[in-house]
Amino acid sequence: MTVEKSLPDKYKNFSEWYNGIVARAKLVDIRYGVKGFIVYRPSIMYIINRIYEVYERELQATGHEPCLFPVVIPRSSFKKEAEHIKGFEQEVFWVTKAGEHALEEPVLLRPTSETAMYPMYALWIRSYKDLPLKLYQGGSVYRYETKATKALLRGREFLWIEAHDAHRTEHDALNQVHEDMKIAEKVLYEELGLPFLLLQREDFDKFAGAVITYAFEVLFPDKEVVQVATTHYLGTNFSKPFNITYLDEKGNAKHPHQTCYGPGISRIAASVICIHGDDYGLILPFEAAPIQVIIVPIPMKQAVKNVLAKCRELEKNLVKAGLRVKLDDSDATPGEKFYKWELLGVPVRLEIGPKELVEGTVTVFRRDTRERLKVKDGELVKHILSLGEKILKTLREKAEKFLKENTHTAETKKELLKIAKEKGGIIRMNYCGNKECADYIKAETGGFEVRGKRMDVKERPDGPCVWCGKKAERVVYVAKAY
Amino acid sequence: MTVEKSLPDKYKNFSEWYNGIVARAKLVDIRYGVKGFIVYRPSIMYIINRIYEVYERELQATGHEPCLFPVVIPRSSFKKEAEHIKGFEQEVFWVTKAGEHALEEPVLLRPTSETAMYPMYALWIRSYKDLPLKLYQGGSVYRYETKATKALLRGREFLWIEAHDAHRTEHDALNQVHEDMKIAEKVLYEELGLPFLLLQREDFDKFAGAVITYAFEVLFPDKEVVQVATTHYLGTNFSKPFNITYLDEKGNAKHPHQTCYGPGISRIAASVICIHGDDYGLILPFEAAPIQVIIVPIPMKQAVKNVLAKCRELEKNLVKAGLRVKLDDSDATPGEKFYKWELLGVPVRLEIGPKELVEGTVTVFRRDTRERLKVKDGELVKHILSLGEKILKTLREKAEKFLKENTHTAETKKELLKIAKEKGGIIRMNYCGNKECADYIKAETGGFEVRGKRMDVKERPDGPCVWCGKKAERVVYVAKAY
Repeated sequence: MTVEKSLPDKYKNFSEWYNGIVARAKLVDIRYGVKGFIVYRPSIMYIINRIYEVYERELQATGHEPCLFPVVIPRSSFKKEAEHIKGFEQEVFWVTKAGEHALEEPVLLRPTSETAMYPMYALWIRSYKDLPLKLYQGGSVYRYETKATKALLRGREFLWIEAHDAHRTEHDALNQVHEDMKIAEKVLYEELGLPFLLLQREDFDKFAGAVITYAFEVLFPDKEVVQVATTHYLGTNFSKPFNITYLDEKGNAKHPHQTCYGPGISRIAASVICIHGDDYGLILPFEAAPIQVIIVPIPMKQAVKNVLAKCRELEKNLVKAGLRVKLDDSDATPGEKFYKWELLGVPVRLEIGPKELVEGTVTVFRRDTRERLKVKDGELVKHILSLGEKILKTLREKAEKFLKENTHTAETKKELLKIAKEKGGIIRMNYCGNKECADYIKAETGGFEVRGKRMDVKERPDGPCVWCGKKAERVVYVAKAY
Repeated sequence: MTVEKSLPDKYKNFSEWYNGIVARAKLVDIRYGVKGFIVYRPSIMYIINRIYEVYERELQATGHEPCLFPVVIPRSSFKKEAEHIKGFEQEVFWVTKAGEHALEEPVLLRPTSETAMYPMYALWIRSYKDLPLKLYQGGSVYRYETKATKALLRGREFLWIEAHDAHRTEHDALNQVHEDMKIAEKVLYEELGLPFLLLQREDFDKFAGAVITYAFEVLFPDKEVVQVATTHYLGTNFSKPFNITYLDEKGNAKHPHQTCYGPGISRIAASVICIHGDDYGLILPFEAAPIQVIIVPIPMKQAVKNVLAKCRELEKNLVKAGLRVKLDDSDATPGEKFYKWELLGVPVRLEIGPKELVEGTVTVFRRDTRERLKVKDGELVKHILSLGEKILKTLREKAEKFLKENTHTAETKKELLKIAKEKGGIIRMNYCGNKECADYIKAETGGFEVRGKRMDVKERPDGPCVWCGKKAERVVYVAKAY
């Protein structure tokens, strides 16, 4: 009994693969009647809820507390930080009416919540004892995107978490950025198997209002990068106009230094889908999997009862071991069940038929390698727990290999153009720091953008700017991006 | 060491008590700059997240799956069901602009999601095999309330869950309503200790577009009722205009019968706070408590290390037993810690000092009765697990007693007026069914409303309508309501 491939090769035709998996696995429905707004269906919501859970767990473990601010922001508050308005004013939705009456002051749907939260921070923060203040909220934000939208990757409503922290000093705030990096490493890399580049954006590419912007980027099968999270050091750019002050030990009023951190949950879900998936469907690492183990009975007439009894016993034992397990005792055929649960990416399948009954074994199918193995009943729980680790490792290594193989260094302009044209992926190069060069590169390579220098590793340029030949200031990474 | 009361008696001055607890426990902040919109702070978010978790668990256990529809609804879709528009058009917020451009078609913020979801149901439902379709989503909805707003109880943005189910027949849909009732019983009554009345609303008081509306109401300390959830049988009122059809086994096209179910999570949180709380603060049943057990070390100089070591060991054992535990090893004094955690309603506190070290005991403080008891180390885990049950039972019984004591039967108009004036609470009476009588009752009692007849118990009127003296059709419950 084997399942047939239902999707094309994602490396050869990514767009078709992606549209195929979105439709077949019923992840989202793009036919909702408002442009840029999609419907999240159960198969993606289960995964999204898992990702929220993991991220929130790590945020809470580092002292962040949950909160929830209104979806609407008063215009007066939005207008307080000049750079921030410039960056967002073209893409905010305005609520102007209620019933048949015009609102006295129009309010906007949050595109991000700095201007919602910081007026309250000004009320809550009084003394150094109130710092650090570390709050986060999960939920949707709204941006009137004019670029082409793509399910889960770019839309006018997207799901994220935003953590807003206020610290006493620049030093503490920059440490926060490092903590944010550690959290991303734990969640994205360790738990979800997604390797990423951590890049400091060029000044012309910063978050509106930030002093420094760092971005976490993953590489998709079509060799374009996707920004899955950002963290910003805001300095006192917001605490000054929003009048947030604290009294230090000596009674001097000071402005706290702020950071904000935004993991994009829809985009992380899309990354799990695209980076790990294959021609049969999704492949979920254990942490992202709403169902970690699916049990499929293979009943023959004479053994239906005993097969089901064994399945139920296994289910009980595995639940007890802390696993998320489902016994599929529906009327579908085993073949239909195999197809469905492979498509949905359940990492481990157990098959139990009369043979396994007699042998005292279980047939274990591992979704990532699609290998089948017989395991003795007594060893099953241990085997599955270690299999969870193995699957994660395999997925992560595969993704790392792809990232490494598709990162190239360009020594010259000619090389840059050649790699961009023939290989694609991420291009590493010496860079002068001028926006003009970045603009030319984008124009002449058909879309490759300067994404920034690495934050986690110090890299010194070993030659002049690859584009203009002038003195290089840093090594940057250049790629097409979603 | 005792904690002083910081709040007035909630039965004597409920409003002051409520404002006091909201401020002291930092539940929400009402100073956000948009009328009717509040900020949920960590201490309430933890509780709200717990309530979501419990409710979603029960919804999933009954075959509901999570989904998420956009916050905005196209005007054309909103306008499809005539009664529904009439009911909501005065209270919807309209998004009319993005950036500086007017939208081609204005969209509204969801006040409830029938008109967002059902156009998709029309696409998804094809055959009887697609039924029942049972989906739910959690999150915020938006209504331009003109009544006075009150934190967590009435606002322009509130948190709820909405489950929308499509069934083949009226019979199946009415069974769904019963399932919804069972879920409420499990969550509200069994897990959160909140007794409720389940009432069928009068026709003039139905949800806009429903065939029948049922409401779940709890009684607050000020003797007013709060509707914490509703469930509606929609018949084919929506499936017809939204053109939702399925083919039955014989190939005939039919409209499914629909239901929708809306537990109000902010209101349930408010009910837990108000119905269980006392003069010292919140009292949380185990299921609603983010922290079930708080451990407070009482260190004396000579035993600091050993006390802390014992605390940590206890913490480990209790976590292992599946409990949510926190060791408060902050710099605050034990008295400050007692005050804080009592205010926040942690159901069980453990106190460990040099005495307990010597005796091999732990002092266990129970938040609901405020009793202290010494328990032997070896019996602690078992004791706490059973204490969770006891606390829940005590809270539930207290709430039930209050509900019972404040429900009165009025045999005559004079009695009705007297009870309304002197006792308040819920009044049970024979009723003719005419809206006119309900309007008179409301006007002449200063706000008592006919809330409906019981759904779970058949009650026959034993006399004429208490108000007009004409033939009574049913026994209804009358109360002031939030």
